[in-house]
Amino acid sequence: MKAAILGVSGYTGQLLLRILLDHPGITEIIPVSTSKQGKSLSIIDPGLGCRSLEKVQATAEKAVSIKKALNYKVDVVFAALPHLKSAELYAPFLGKAVIIDLSADLRIKDALLFKQAYGVRPPRQDLLEQAVYGLCEWYNKDIKGTDIIANPGCYTTASLLPLLPLCKQGIVKDHIIINAVSGISGAGKKVKEYLLFCERTENVGAYSPGRTHRHALEIEAELNMINKDFSLLFTPHLAPLCRGIATTIVVQSTKEISVQELMDIYQQYYGTFPFIGLRGEVIPQTKEVWGSNRCDIGWHIEEDMVMIFSVIDNLIKGAAGQAVQNMNIRFGIDETTGLKVHNEL
Amino acid sequence: MKAAILGVSGYTGQLLLRILLDHPGITEIIPVSTSKQGKSLSIIDPGLGCRSLEKVQATAEKAVSIKKALNYKVDVVFAALPHLKSAELYAPFLGKAVIIDLSADLRIKDALLFKQAYGVRPPRQDLLEQAVYGLCEWYNKDIKGTDIIANPGCYTTASLLPLLPLCKQGIVKDHIIINAVSGISGAGKKVKEYLLFCERTENVGAYSPGRTHRHALEIEAELNMINKDFSLLFTPHLAPLCRGIATTIVVQSTKEISVQELMDIYQQYYGTFPFIGLRGEVIPQTKEVWGSNRCDIGWHIEEDMVMIFSVIDNLIKGAAGQAVQNMNIRFGIDETTGLKVHNEL
Amino acid sequence: MKAAILGVSGYTGQLLLRILLDHPGITEIIPVSTSKQGKSLSIIDPGLGCRSLEKVQATAEKAVSIKKALNYKVDVVFAALPHLKSAELYAPFLGKAVIIDLSADLRIKDALLFKQAYGVRPPRQDLLEQAVYGLCEWYNKDIKGTDIIANPGCYTTASLLPLLPLCKQGIVKDHIIINAVSGISGAGKKVKEYLLFCERTENVGAYSPGRTHRHALEIEAELNMINKDFSLLFTPHLAPLCRGIATTIVVQSTKEISVQELMDIYQQYYGTFPFIGLRGEVIPQTKEVWGSNRCDIGWHIEEDMVMIFSVIDNLIKGAAGQAVQNMNIRFGIDETTGLKVHNEL
Amino acid sequence: MKAAILGVSGYTGQLLLRILLDHPGITEIIPVSTSKQGKSLSIIDPGLGCRSLEKVQATAEKAVSIKKALNYKVDVVFAALPHLKSAELYAPFLGKAVIIDLSADLRIKDALLFKQAYGVRPPRQDLLEQAVYGLCEWYNKDIKGTDIIANPGCYTTASLLPLLPLCKQGIVKDHIIINAVSGISGAGKKVKEYLLFCERTENVGAYSPGRTHRHALEIEAELNMINKDFSLLFTPHLAPLCRGIATTIVVQSTKEISVQELMDIYQQYYGTFPFIGLRGEVIPQTKEVWGSNRCDIGWHIEEDMVMIFSVIDNLIKGAAGQAVQNMNIRFGIDETTGLKVHNEL
Repeated sequence: MKAAILGVSGYTGQLLLRILLDHPGITEIIPVSTSKQGKSLSIIDPGLGCRSLEKVQATAEKAVSIKKALNYKVDVVFAALPHLKSAELYAPFLGKAVIIDLSADLRIKDALLFKQAYGVRPPRQDLLEQAVYGLCEWYNKDIKGTDIIANPGCYTTASLLPLLPLCKQGIVKDHIIINAVSGISGAGKKVKEYLLFCERTENVGAYSPGRTHRHALEIEAELNMINKDFSLLFTPHLAPLCRGIATTIVVQSTKEISVQELMDIYQQYYGTFPFIGLRGEVIPQTKEVWGSNRCDIGWHIEEDMVMIFSVIDNLIKGAAGQAVQNMNIRFGIDETTGLKVHNEL
Repeated sequence: MKAAILGVSGYTGQLLLRILLDHPGITEIIPVSTSKQGKSLSIIDPGLGCRSLEKVQATAEKAVSIKKALNYKVDVVFAALPHLKSAELYAPFLGKAVIIDLSADLRIKDALLFKQAYGVRPPRQDLLEQAVYGLCEWYNKDIKGTDIIANPGCYTTASLLPLLPLCKQGIVKDHIIINAVSGISGAGKKVKEYLLFCERTENVGAYSPGRTHRHALEIEAELNMINKDFSLLFTPHLAPLCRGIATTIVVQSTKEISVQELMDIYQQYYGTFPFIGLRGEVIPQTKEVWGSNRCDIGWHIEEDMVMIFSVIDNLIKGAAGQAVQNMNIRFGIDETTGLKVHNEL
Repeated sequence: MKAAILGVSGYTGQLLLRILLDHPGITEIIPVSTSKQGKSLSIIDPGLGCRSLEKVQATAEKAVSIKKALNYKVDVVFAALPHLKSAELYAPFLGKAVIIDLSADLRIKDALLFKQAYGVRPPRQDLLEQAVYGLCEWYNKDIKGTDIIANPGCYTTASLLPLLPLCKQGIVKDHIIINAVSGISGAGKKVKEYLLFCERTENVGAYSPGRTHRHALEIEAELNMINKDFSLLFTPHLAPLCRGIATTIVVQSTKEISVQELMDIYQQYYGTFPFIGLRGEVIPQTKEVWGSNRCDIGWHIEEDMVMIFSVIDNLIKGAAGQAVQNMNIRFGIDETTGLKVHNEL
Repeated sequence: MKAAILGVSGYTGQLLLRILLDHPGITEIIPVSTSKQGKSLSIIDPGLGCRSLEKVQATAEKAVSIKKALNYKVDVVFAALPHLKSAELYAPFLGKAVIIDLSADLRIKDALLFKQAYGVRPPRQDLLEQAVYGLCEWYNKDIKGTDIIANPGCYTTASLLPLLPLCKQGIVKDHIIINAVSGISGAGKKVKEYLLFCERTENVGAYSPGRTHRHALEIEAELNMINKDFSLLFTPHLAPLCRGIATTIVVQSTKEISVQELMDIYQQYYGTFPFIGLRGEVIPQTKEVWGSNRCDIGWHIEEDMVMIFSVIDNLIKGAAGQAVQNMNIRFGIDETTGLKVHNEL
């Protein structure tokens, strides 16, 4: 199977490249970069090592332009591109390959909600119906049947995976309060002052609270599909680590519920799923999933309040890993191929 | 004025020593350590430099035992000692000096609540009445009139300072949800596996949620003094920084309220206070108060939900700094003496 | 092939477990721990995830004692144990399995030199002749023919790989000055005050200079095998990262030499080796090899002085990765199996 | 005394501002910024707190342009500006105030050497004779008599302070090998990709080896003043901390020398100096001087090789602190005023 990676020099693109290099189902990779086309991968990304990259022989181990990439008949295109530019840039591949869009362009189907989040209407409204929201554990069947997958956001994945079973099961009263702490790589490789090492080390704090963060609206979009009105308050925080998201979710339960009953509900939804770790009363920590495609979930009950805790690696389950999981599902490959269940220590 | 520091080799004790060395009102310091008595300060704590420490001449720049410390007539005793051992250890100084207890031993007056938090009854119930809870911005008058001050916990300080004005003003409905992220120094200099560099770097997550964390009950003890029932849910998190606490507090407001009205309320309570920074809609970050005795507060309103954000340096305003502020108040010295309003960059 | 890991709960043991779980040549793993025997792996090491660990079924996914481990006929034993205890503990496996000893017990064959480094005579002098120093790129042939492999130290690997070609080629005058900066995991998972997060963050400095560091003598032992007297000065430093070693080596060249001639020499020795990255005048950085089994080497010439720079991941090429590389070589498996050439981003 | 700070929004400018705000000899500060003129200090630099900044009333707590700054008669100008632009920008203050130039513009008097380092001739050759190299512990007398002080570079300070006594004393043979590890703030607040948090965390390595780093030539310039030819090899490294430089210097001694004799030499030169910490065989660590104006020095002898270790806070003794020390000396104020001997924990 042949894959193109659009945006190969960003953090997500770099990780996609690594996962696909080790993925037994991938025989050829076309690395694409607008800013670094023509340059050798091992210069763009010295962590690859200077040994030959067998799967990238077609382009002589160089990043190429989108136009050039079209010359290679690829089966799947990973678009790790900026929001609002993504759908436009991969347009030439539509109908020719399965598109996995890691941007937000196709994630929110409600045009109004999209506009609230991104300030403009969805850039390709015509694709929205066909596009499947690639939250693997929930849309498996739809993913199998589509050629356009909207890969979920990192905060969204970390929030929806622990929330959906309880919301669907009618356990959750109206208010949902999500606090999430993210590593700095969530902001991408943007060269901004606030992302400098000296600005972020020994520094932690909230930003974009409530509906001012786009992922809040993406979470809302998915919760809206459940037949109940939820009121969501989402607050992201930055902490001085590179990778990892931890969420702490507080909801009021609609009825008395025990720790074991929560385990039963989660087991019912996720019992056989390879990438969900159910931890019960043990609160998961981000390091435990660093480098893995897992989402670990723990919980704590205090009277009628239920606290749920989840962790993911924002670049893996929150981006590149889930994208490959989507590819695996779409192409009928075993879901775990090329992805790690365990962390990197 | 002469001061003794009990527990001079812990993080809080080390900071107390530094602040008092630079404090113009202090002429003599008696450093006390049970584990390191007889050792030179500059060996225990090489960051002090190997120049002469003028104010520590009485003990020849060495840490001494509590027994030996009693020979020096000190005016104030800072007890930076472990919970449950503190009150017992400084007992010989009672009646002879003002005691500032940085442990939790005298913080919670309700014996039952104390037992829920610490597993045993308060170690010195007889002192509870006399002891004043040293939250400087709220108990100024009482602090002036007592000889025993219970210095508040770090999470407690970071939570109560932003909450109390709104709670007192009747703005807050029953539920209060506090998420706090703390640097690792909050755990002290304990030699435990989970505090190793390699365990904490690239790692973030919640711990001791709800009433399983002692500071939740300390916050509750203070909220109980307001004539209203609040339901508190507190969740602390550890993030890979040394110093700093950021809280994100969510409450439902009892009436429609604006960003400006919140500013007015905060101004009314804190307007002239040197160590409270009112930031309005700007969310404060821990680095902005690193090394300072400030607590900065910001807020955000979303319909009937009010989000409040605060930051402190857990070792300064959350421990050593507030202790010195308490000393200043108690002895009629200008409150800011020896303490910093600005951060360390 | 069946493998036992002695010391499965240390950092090296944990990484060995991960590498072997993903290694296609390994069918069964016996995890051994003296301190945690009887405990479930997923509790000892939650990063593994709570899915079933197929290869660890024999012990029901639990860590077992050495005595119990003997019941399982394993082909290879990885001993990730403390120095001076290692050889003693794996003794029962001698003659029954290939031993890969990650401690220093068999690294230095010169008993006097060993004593200088470790304070006592080698614990198993009788094994020294048979034991092969497992510096894969240099002792490939010997490794193939032995049943006892002494896996090199991390600083030693990072120093010898860049040095040996130049020393063997007669380029290096007598003095060799090595400065190495290591991440904190090099000290293992020891619970010591100086390894706490708050002690190491924002902290860098040298320690154990010259012959006071054991690895200096291990490097010396290998240099002694070259027919020339070298005078070595080695200084290790700790920096606030978890994984990674960077060396900066300064030697005087015996003759005028160019950047390209150095490349030619390195190519001649390492040209076809999968885990050596020759970077020329680009100075490698530790992040570029984080998680990989690579050693990258760069250089700079200033008149008659040659500066050589190398980086490794101290837990991979400097420990668990090289151990698995040794296993691959010994058992005739492709050398790169189960190991990564690229970094983890 | 009135002071202007040119470049108040960089790391060095921010620290200068903090030190001068607390400095009892300074009554008025004029903050100058070309990029942020007209903006409030508390917005540019929220760590200052939102309380009134008494000493900055003249400009209404706002950063002003250089032109505006000229309206205020200041006694001293701190120029924390980029190399090659600095001398040009502070020119209007020449003759009107004492200039302390924190850039490299006046550090190297040898025009050829300057050109090798900075690619062009010194921008103000006419000022070179008058300018004194502000290495406080060595040029005290000259500093007192000049109106232009060239504040030394950070690496230079950390290298020369430990080296000069031994070089002057004739202990050092020809070769001097300096390895230095620096925190990221040494690069300033430049918005560059390689300075992003995610690029620097878990990353360490050398850069600009030998004469390719400008500070190597600045060190050389000072060594050249000693009547002996030294051959210098300097290699800087970046490590993931914000502040701190540690040097490891290797020299061959001209005669047999003991640890105590080294102490005697250092005592002779630095015995009464408040900011030099002589540590003997204890190797200093950067955290021990974090926030202080100290340079701590330790050493180790191995046969005829002498290893010297020094640490400074690159932003304090390596920049803002030494600049204020220079001001104190120049204006006859006690040298330690406003500066810290102890670290910040």
